[in-house]
Amino acid sequence: MKTYIDCYPCILRQAVEAARMAKATPSQEHEIVLKALDILRFLPEGTTPPAIGTQVHRIVREITGIQDPYAEVKQEATVKVVSMLPKLQKIIDSSDDRLETALRLSIAGNIMDFGPNPNYDLWEIIQKALTQDIAVNDLPILRERLGTAESILFLGDNVGEHVFDKLLIKELPLPVTYVVRGDAVLNDVTLKDAQAVGLDKVAKIVDNGARVPGTILSKCSKEFRERFNDADLILAKGMGNYETLSEVKAPIFFLFQVKCPIIGLDIDAPTGSTVVKKGMGG
Amino acid sequence: MKTYIDCYPCILRQAVEAARMAKATPSQEHEIVLKALDILRFLPEGTTPPAIGTQVHRIVREITGIQDPYAEVKQEATVKVVSMLPKLQKIIDSSDDRLETALRLSIAGNIMDFGPNPNYDLWEIIQKALTQDIAVNDLPILRERLGTAESILFLGDNVGEHVFDKLLIKELPLPVTYVVRGDAVLNDVTLKDAQAVGLDKVAKIVDNGARVPGTILSKCSKEFRERFNDADLILAKGMGNYETLSEVKAPIFFLFQVKCPIIGLDIDAPTGSTVVKKGMGG
Repeated sequence: MKTYIDCYPCILRQAVEAARMAKATPSQEHEIVLKALDILRFLPEGTTPPAIGTQVHRIVREITGIQDPYAEVKQEATVKVVSMLPKLQKIIDSSDDRLETALRLSIAGNIMDFGPNPNYDLWEIIQKALTQDIAVNDLPILRERLGTAESILFLGDNVGEHVFDKLLIKELPLPVTYVVRGDAVLNDVTLKDAQAVGLDKVAKIVDNGARVPGTILSKCSKEFRERFNDADLILAKGMGNYETLSEVKAPIFFLFQVKCPIIGLDIDAPTGSTVVKKGMGG
Repeated sequence: MKTYIDCYPCILRQAVEAARMAKATPSQEHEIVLKALDILRFLPEGTTPPAIGTQVHRIVREITGIQDPYAEVKQEATVKVVSMLPKLQKIIDSSDDRLETALRLSIAGNIMDFGPNPNYDLWEIIQKALTQDIAVNDLPILRERLGTAESILFLGDNVGEHVFDKLLIKELPLPVTYVVRGDAVLNDVTLKDAQAVGLDKVAKIVDNGARVPGTILSKCSKEFRERFNDADLILAKGMGNYETLSEVKAPIFFLFQVKCPIIGLDIDAPTGSTVVKKGMGG
């Protein structure tokens, strides 16, 4: 997805928030914002929002020296969702359609994102995601693919959300490889985070070799790119993966919450809606 | 008030919104945002947010050729509040303290601002402003000054809000000079807007000679500056006037809604609260 004009102020806001998260001093904050302005000022044609985010978060790390500003909030998010697990598992166990319920929960978990909007009531989002119409709903096609594919490449997104993903993976009828980011960026899931909640018990975990809040294939490792190209079914969680892969021809389904009006405009679904969207070649 | 780091993304957002309001083409929008980034990138020390807003709105006019992008929304705001006038007048007539009620209504009207947050329910804001505690409350001191001053210089702010101001002026015990902006900028009140709702029936109207969404004295006319310096009591509506005059030594009282968390931080009052704040020398 291209960077819309409305993304500029939003990215600048995220730069300020990331600076705070890294406990930047006022002069470091100022330096971060000026560098973010420079990035926005000279944006190469076709840059995606997560590509800009990548640069912004690198600047925050370079200027503050803090390698993982979101470590604490990631820890809190994990503890929060893990404590909800028995309740969430019960919802799946008592449902008529375990797969759809687990998928809806996994999409609900996608709200746990410190990029577009850090304020939300998780339990409210869960209740809503369980019952609301899926605004863009390619679930019937996804079900078909689940019947014919041999395995699933599952692109994770955020920490906290990854606990919901574990519930979904347990309901998927195929072997799953769960992909994490190559290193800490924003509140995105890394190998350590995935292992900490036992995702390695239900899936093979691999990292994509890139420190990007999304999946920019050219920045990923050769190994990951080969895996991506060979996959016969890919589930990609979150807006960052959508923004970076929406124009890639691959057997992919995007699962996310619409958390910003611009992505909503791009896919014709309102903010607050949920999406199961077949990609190009999906 | 100085420009905080959080003001940068907010001002950039306002640039995008102003571009839309002026019906800028996509390439004009892009040009406006790039120029706004340049302004933010090379901000002189001590620049106030309304000073940046002044430059942003000038760019929007220059690039789109539209001199008053907010003409239509100003017209709508005026019609809306004028239609509420009988109800508002009744609230004042049936109150025990006409001055305080009119003052609370005038502050409620300050919500009509296309800068910080264009989405609100006006009637809900009115109800709230009539009953909520005034978060910074120098009204007792203002009452004293009303007993000793000879006249009032009333610095207007937005269109729509100016109709509420008229109600307040009718309750003030002193002759009032109502100050409007020198020309159209954002949705700020101009001579034409003030005359259209009969403010000239209850006050002498003068313009400040500047096209600024606030009051930057150095940009105002000599006549206005003299009037300002000679005033024995000044009422200044809105955040823009606060941001530009908060450090000026004058017998001034700021009346506004806290519509952004940064001003809230600056005056130690939460967003959504109302303020009657004595200025330096007030």
